[in-house]
Amino acid sequence: MNLPKFVEIIEVGPRDGLQNEAKLIPTDKKVELINLLSQTGIKRMEATSFVSPKHVPQMADASEVLRRIDRVEGVQYMTLIPNLKGYELSKEQGVDSIALFVAASETFNQRNVRMPIAESMKQLAKVVEDAKSNNTFVRFDISTAFCCPFERAVPVDNVLRVVKELESLEVDEIVVCDTIGRANPKQVYEVFSEILNLNTRAKITGHFHDTYGLSKANTIAALQAGVAAFDASIGGLGGCPFAPGAAGNDSTEDLVFMLHEMGIETGIDLTKLLQCVDLIKGVTERDLTGHISKIENLVI
Amino acid sequence: MNLPKFVEIIEVGPRDGLQNEAKLIPTDKKVELINLLSQTGIKRMEATSFVSPKHVPQMADASEVLRRIDRVEGVQYMTLIPNLKGYELSKEQGVDSIALFVAASETFNQRNVRMPIAESMKQLAKVVEDAKSNNTFVRFDISTAFCCPFERAVPVDNVLRVVKELESLEVDEIVVCDTIGRANPKQVYEVFSEILNLNTRAKITGHFHDTYGLSKANTIAALQAGVAAFDASIGGLGGCPFAPGAAGNDSTEDLVFMLHEMGIETGIDLTKLLQCVDLIKGVTERDLTGHISKIENLVI
Repeated sequence: MNLPKFVEIIEVGPRDGLQNEAKLIPTDKKVELINLLSQTGIKRMEATSFVSPKHVPQMADASEVLRRIDRVEGVQYMTLIPNLKGYELSKEQGVDSIALFVAASETFNQRNVRMPIAESMKQLAKVVEDAKSNNTFVRFDISTAFCCPFERAVPVDNVLRVVKELESLEVDEIVVCDTIGRANPKQVYEVFSEILNLNTRAKITGHFHDTYGLSKANTIAALQAGVAAFDASIGGLGGCPFAPGAAGNDSTEDLVFMLHEMGIETGIDLTKLLQCVDLIKGVTERDLTGHISKIENLVI
Repeated sequence: MNLPKFVEIIEVGPRDGLQNEAKLIPTDKKVELINLLSQTGIKRMEATSFVSPKHVPQMADASEVLRRIDRVEGVQYMTLIPNLKGYELSKEQGVDSIALFVAASETFNQRNVRMPIAESMKQLAKVVEDAKSNNTFVRFDISTAFCCPFERAVPVDNVLRVVKELESLEVDEIVVCDTIGRANPKQVYEVFSEILNLNTRAKITGHFHDTYGLSKANTIAALQAGVAAFDASIGGLGGCPFAPGAAGNDSTEDLVFMLHEMGIETGIDLTKLLQCVDLIKGVTERDLTGHISKIENLVI
């Protein structure tokens, strides 16, 4: 098996995870979680987002979260930005790392941000340009890069077109997302092989959900295609709050466990990571979908 | 990716799955499940076992189950046999397909059947010899082929030794089992590559558990090593009843879903398989660990 020696894990629980929780999480607990995650060896995380408080009330405390967290030297705290307005808010807070997003599927982009992909790209290109002139790190998520809930399978050419456009904007990182968790390992291997063939300057990161139980199988496929950076969410937070019992984002602790068992380094302390799971378990008061935290007398 | 066109799925839910249920399942429901599974396109299953009713009360109705099921032409109904006594009982019932087992780890074999591996092999060799003289199909499980709860990682040479011995006994199928679900994809790829290099006449089958969330990742690794037959358990039944919330055997419906999404045929009707999940959900009255049955408005 073609495997890297080191894999980078980007924690998205405080943002992509918590934004899907039906129950409003107190700001104190968000700050506590981000501070605890900062002690695990994780070097990059999505901390919050400047989205509409009307649409995503869970993220209404973005400014307060950013003000209150204890920033650890060497840890990057990213903020998700949907549009120019969110970007202006993030600038006021002195945010130095932003995450933007566009879909690879036209219908999904329309439903998500009420505009065509081309219009999203046009507006966000301005954000990228300004951000880069301010030395702000720009991560860019491509949603529904494999499957769309409305259009089903997404042609690889659609994804490649977006990747090329983002590369021409000189973004720092392109995150290829299986938003609904329905990608399969064969497709993942093929899509990432084509993307990596483009030899982008931007880092290429994989982002999987475990909705259909395939996040780890897809990770193995992506690893073999040459991907060595993955998003994950503590406890498996995330996904869709309207699908009770369905799994969310790929769980950080399970992913780190798998990689370590395979002899792949992550720089992350799994014991400390499990303390973050305990914290989030108490806060969400629901059954999390990660696996290893449920094993009695776990030996790691 | 190196992938087969067709993968054979062997259903083990009625035996390996149900034997782990704390709640006693009525014989009627077992018969109903096996009959329903027989209509899905599954061609082979473990139906029950002649183990000690004192140790495994869930399987005390083995003879009745075997008498009452509607046998479908072309479907193989296997019975697990722990020892010579169980074999004699199975002969009385006219069983034509048996499954035997031995561990690759000395401590596990000792705790499981209270004898060393060599002694197990000696006793079961007699069963194999007699079974073969009666044209009985012999499947042979190697438990703890990757990890042992007592000895931890199991050296690949221990597994190869058992495989070679079983091949010399001319068994029909060798099932390489990750009994505690802790194997990792790298190890799975390496162990199966070595086993398949032996070019056994016996069919080589993989058997994974999802305890650590790795069953599908391990399946992908095994597929790439060349394995094209896998055990799975309807609903993800199985595993350890003393680990509440922990996942059990690899779920049949999730596995079939993944393979079909990858364009790999199984000959199984996923809609009918999901009816089996509904049946078992009602019978076990607990939250099953399979994923796709939890998705609302599932499109397959």
